[in-house]
Amino acid sequence: MLQPVLHQLNSQRLVLASGSPRRKQILENIGLKFDVIPSNFEENLDKSSFKHPADYARETAKRKALEVAKRLQGSDNPADLVIGADTVITQDDMLFEKPSNKEHAREMLTKFSGGSHFVCTGVILVAPKASKVYKGTQSIDDFSITEFDSRTEVFMSKLSQEVIDAYVETGESFDKAGGYGIQAVGGTLIEGIKGDYFNVMGFPLHKFCVELMKIYNRPDK
Amino acid sequence: MLQPVLHQLNSQRLVLASGSPRRKQILENIGLKFDVIPSNFEENLDKSSFKHPADYARETAKRKALEVAKRLQGSDNPADLVIGADTVITQDDMLFEKPSNKEHAREMLTKFSGGSHFVCTGVILVAPKASKVYKGTQSIDDFSITEFDSRTEVFMSKLSQEVIDAYVETGESFDKAGGYGIQAVGGTLIEGIKGDYFNVMGFPLHKFCVELMKIYNRPDK
Repeated sequence: MLQPVLHQLNSQRLVLASGSPRRKQILENIGLKFDVIPSNFEENLDKSSFKHPADYARETAKRKALEVAKRLQGSDNPADLVIGADTVITQDDMLFEKPSNKEHAREMLTKFSGGSHFVCTGVILVAPKASKVYKGTQSIDDFSITEFDSRTEVFMSKLSQEVIDAYVETGESFDKAGGYGIQAVGGTLIEGIKGDYFNVMGFPLHKFCVELMKIYNRPDK
Repeated sequence: MLQPVLHQLNSQRLVLASGSPRRKQILENIGLKFDVIPSNFEENLDKSSFKHPADYARETAKRKALEVAKRLQGSDNPADLVIGADTVITQDDMLFEKPSNKEHAREMLTKFSGGSHFVCTGVILVAPKASKVYKGTQSIDDFSITEFDSRTEVFMSKLSQEVIDAYVETGESFDKAGGYGIQAVGGTLIEGIKGDYFNVMGFPLHKFCVELMKIYNRPDK
């Protein structure tokens, strides 16, 4: 979808403010050129202060991206666009992030087994207000911001304790919200999804492209 | 899901009777060891003689897998299990396979743009009747066979002519049923799916694992 504007996009400095190898891979696969600069923002917002999990994910993504954008602003090589994202999982009003150890991963997978849960990613695009190309819909300090989120329902198979234990032993659970990775061995556990697959991997690719096309294809630019 | 039986599976000779790099990648990603031996079966069945597209896909998959199984049967190194698959796309009772040229790819994408279509993959597992491990549900010649199919609904974004043209120019359309590949640039065109993502890539991973677990985990084995 980005092909008509890819050359223009790739002539700018895009920065992905995330250390997730999945997000990097998704964006590289569509031919985007960007630098990866993980954020130093400590993910410590009070979850109970947000009405919806999507709001928590958006706010965490915003703090991550703004920290990177501000750090680069004072450098010789500021970013034209910083991309921030945060992924959480919800089931029955409970919010799940990355498991802290094997037992925690087993608990999460036991909860998800035989039912559905939602993967929600908040995405933030941050550009300097001075940018000629990019205008967001909000303004924070010297930055212009666009934000959106995407929700995908995931249906997990009914798993035996043996299958859960063996999966956690693969080590795939760690550094992944919900304790599984749909793109590799974890994909075998998933009966199906409803929504954007890439969102389950950690980045809602389609909505991201729609937002970028709005920015770069605007007739008044 | 296959972890508890993976060691046993990988001690056998598994053969994937398909030249699709996506199917190979999906099965490699879950740690399966197998050889790739593409079938010589010419995909020329009369589509009009099948009531449902799934029946056509299953029959094509069966012919592909049986050709390979028979070829190996007379060799020094016969297969313990041959895996065959065929993927087709349907929309409004029309059946789509791989586009034959750029114009054909553009026509397909124009039909899919702004609506939904279905990706259907038929999968066949073929083993020698003499196999001690594996018993299928049907019998053909000297082989024991299990077959199933999986259907995923895909919602494509409303695409401009410019986006369709630019996508076809990437060259991604060819060798792919429906003229797009969801796993790379084509993923940007897809708003969402309902069902197994890997089925859209050409192989219904979850159902395949469920069938293998039935075979290898049977208490009477």
